[in-house]
Amino acid sequence: MLSAEIIAIGSELLTPEKTDTNSLWLTARLNEIGIDVKLKTIVGDDGARLEETVKDAMRRSDLVITTGGLGPTEDDITRHFTANAVGRELVYHDEIEQHLRERFRLWGREMPEINKRQAFVIEGAEILPNPNGSAVGMYVEMDGKMLAILPGPPRENQPMFNEYVFPKLQAVSGDVFVRRRMLKVSGKGESAVDEVAAPIYTAYPNVQTSVLFNKSEVEIHVAATADTADKAQAIADELAEKLAEALGSAVFSTHGESMEEVVGKRLAALGQTVAVAESCTGGLVGERLTNVPGSSAYFIEGAITYSNEAKMRTLGVPAEILDSHGAVSAQCAEAMAAGMRAHAGTDHAISVTGIAGPDGGSEEKPVGTVFLGYAGPSGVKSVKFVLPGDRYLIRWRSSQAALDYLRRQLGK
Amino acid sequence: MLSAEIIAIGSELLTPEKTDTNSLWLTARLNEIGIDVKLKTIVGDDGARLEETVKDAMRRSDLVITTGGLGPTEDDITRHFTANAVGRELVYHDEIEQHLRERFRLWGREMPEINKRQAFVIEGAEILPNPNGSAVGMYVEMDGKMLAILPGPPRENQPMFNEYVFPKLQAVSGDVFVRRRMLKVSGKGESAVDEVAAPIYTAYPNVQTSVLFNKSEVEIHVAATADTADKAQAIADELAEKLAEALGSAVFSTHGESMEEVVGKRLAALGQTVAVAESCTGGLVGERLTNVPGSSAYFIEGAITYSNEAKMRTLGVPAEILDSHGAVSAQCAEAMAAGMRAHAGTDHAISVTGIAGPDGGSEEKPVGTVFLGYAGPSGVKSVKFVLPGDRYLIRWRSSQAALDYLRRQLGK
Repeated sequence: MLSAEIIAIGSELLTPEKTDTNSLWLTARLNEIGIDVKLKTIVGDDGARLEETVKDAMRRSDLVITTGGLGPTEDDITRHFTANAVGRELVYHDEIEQHLRERFRLWGREMPEINKRQAFVIEGAEILPNPNGSAVGMYVEMDGKMLAILPGPPRENQPMFNEYVFPKLQAVSGDVFVRRRMLKVSGKGESAVDEVAAPIYTAYPNVQTSVLFNKSEVEIHVAATADTADKAQAIADELAEKLAEALGSAVFSTHGESMEEVVGKRLAALGQTVAVAESCTGGLVGERLTNVPGSSAYFIEGAITYSNEAKMRTLGVPAEILDSHGAVSAQCAEAMAAGMRAHAGTDHAISVTGIAGPDGGSEEKPVGTVFLGYAGPSGVKSVKFVLPGDRYLIRWRSSQAALDYLRRQLGK
Repeated sequence: MLSAEIIAIGSELLTPEKTDTNSLWLTARLNEIGIDVKLKTIVGDDGARLEETVKDAMRRSDLVITTGGLGPTEDDITRHFTANAVGRELVYHDEIEQHLRERFRLWGREMPEINKRQAFVIEGAEILPNPNGSAVGMYVEMDGKMLAILPGPPRENQPMFNEYVFPKLQAVSGDVFVRRRMLKVSGKGESAVDEVAAPIYTAYPNVQTSVLFNKSEVEIHVAATADTADKAQAIADELAEKLAEALGSAVFSTHGESMEEVVGKRLAALGQTVAVAESCTGGLVGERLTNVPGSSAYFIEGAITYSNEAKMRTLGVPAEILDSHGAVSAQCAEAMAAGMRAHAGTDHAISVTGIAGPDGGSEEKPVGTVFLGYAGPSGVKSVKFVLPGDRYLIRWRSSQAALDYLRRQLGK
């Protein structure tokens, strides 16, 4: 089994506000092919410590991955001190500079001179292209050890790792295969899920199963180990299917898809359309639905009717409802959904109206009170929740409940 | 200025699901008295690596803090290997065992034999009592260096640090105070900001300044050190003001506020209102504006006009504009903003229409092409961007550019 160390570079990661999260994703990917992460280091813009850390890691472990510190400024020290650590020179690559100049030109900007620094590469290193940013990565093999130097932003280092580093590791990691499945469950707590799931997963001793609560859903992570990828996958699949069956319709995702992906796929398969009318979520439900590529096939329109006037003007909510029941009511939620569906001419419409806080709660309707409305071929209806959490969480959980409410109308 | 390293111990911290967070709290406490955290390490239940890590840290830094690995089981390796690292023996303390037995008795249980391990302490170390758990901490001074060995659970290590370690550090750290400011800049890259900022901040040798790019904005972090808190604050403020002046209107935040907070504060101060019309951002601009508590004072309404029909139906965008210029055009953005403002009756309206990808791009209008529209007292106008990134980033950067466009219309 190969051993790895991950080194995150950047003084911001040594402040009280920030922590390294790149290593979590990298660890998951490495674990998949049986590579064990033995140590993680977070080092600031301190050349001597970085150099020593890389040297020590290269001595102790088969694989060393660094993230960050490849930007163009003075405090981006990774190029210089990783080169020192492996005892090689930095070499200037004109083709990288030309590529950078072209990138800046496409954005209509001139390349600042300091970006030239990003054209220096460790002698003999393989250059790892970065379509998503200006910093190229590097890969060095030396004395049977591997060193991968990746940029810090996840949207740059993850594709780079997947495309250029992972295949090399796979080739040397041997016959240890780990395959994962992830189920997501809505409307049940962590312990309620575990009560159903534990009797099933404890019968699989070669599978690592964990049940985690994440903002508004419970995730069940299943990781099966075997000596072939197919065997590991088959075990993971078997357990996942058993768990999904036992938990029933509360399981909204059987392959880790997000709620908006699940709803979108279902709408696309049915050839049906949806519109949303939002008050307290302020656009979050629309934002989540349209975050899925191809969502224009089924998402037609949304209305963020934050004020009472907007609810009347745009959705035709009757003034009497607002006067006698208030904007946060079943009646208002139903009128919003029905009004939205009529306006947009869609198959389905959902609505959200509630009190996200921190102010605006009352004894009768405390902060967290949310009504969801639905209008569709089967008619108009609504449901009430009182959701825990701060403003951010109440809005997030409202959007999740709204999407889940829609999901349950769309059938299996 | 004293330097510190933090070592978190435990294999669970090397899984894809968990990361060390104790160090964030410890870093904040250390920074308060001017102690700089230079490096953080996360090491699993691997004795050799732990011993080497502690040795290296003691050589490089004035203060080393370890957290975790003090439990009673086989994989709690901290006592043994920190003792090795400082070259001392572990000594058995009968009074700790008696105290543990008493603790268990109070819970109505017999002490398991393995808990005896927790009665071993590094020779010459000060024992740090733990009222909240069974593991005592240790404090060692050696060759002018300090080593604090704390348990992992925050409810155990934080009170222990506060009561026994912090006072010692305060006594040796002298009168060192650190105060921070953060500026945020939009519409400029990291290197362009640094070109303006570096000549200014390099004249402040007692201030640590870092320039970071974060999704769609550049952050300038300023941390000033002085012998009183007031002096440190005055220096941080002085530098922050100079940087803000040099960078001009590109600086949208001088105390770390988000773009939506800045825009919201400005609208509230002016007593003016806004509405948004969104296509490619799908509700994100509305979601961000309404994420600010109290936003109902100025945010009236939003329209997520994802389809062409919605743009015509809800915002009155003329069919001719969509036919001859397309939905992603300056004309459409302006018609969306003007239509939204007329519909909602607000002081200002902004609109976003663009191609977020991954599909839908063309030679003339590649993925990332975004038009922002504005309608307000000064008239109707628009601006074009070609934004880099994937779907997520293009949508995020579009929302940021739209909010920034609005900000620039609201005056100083």
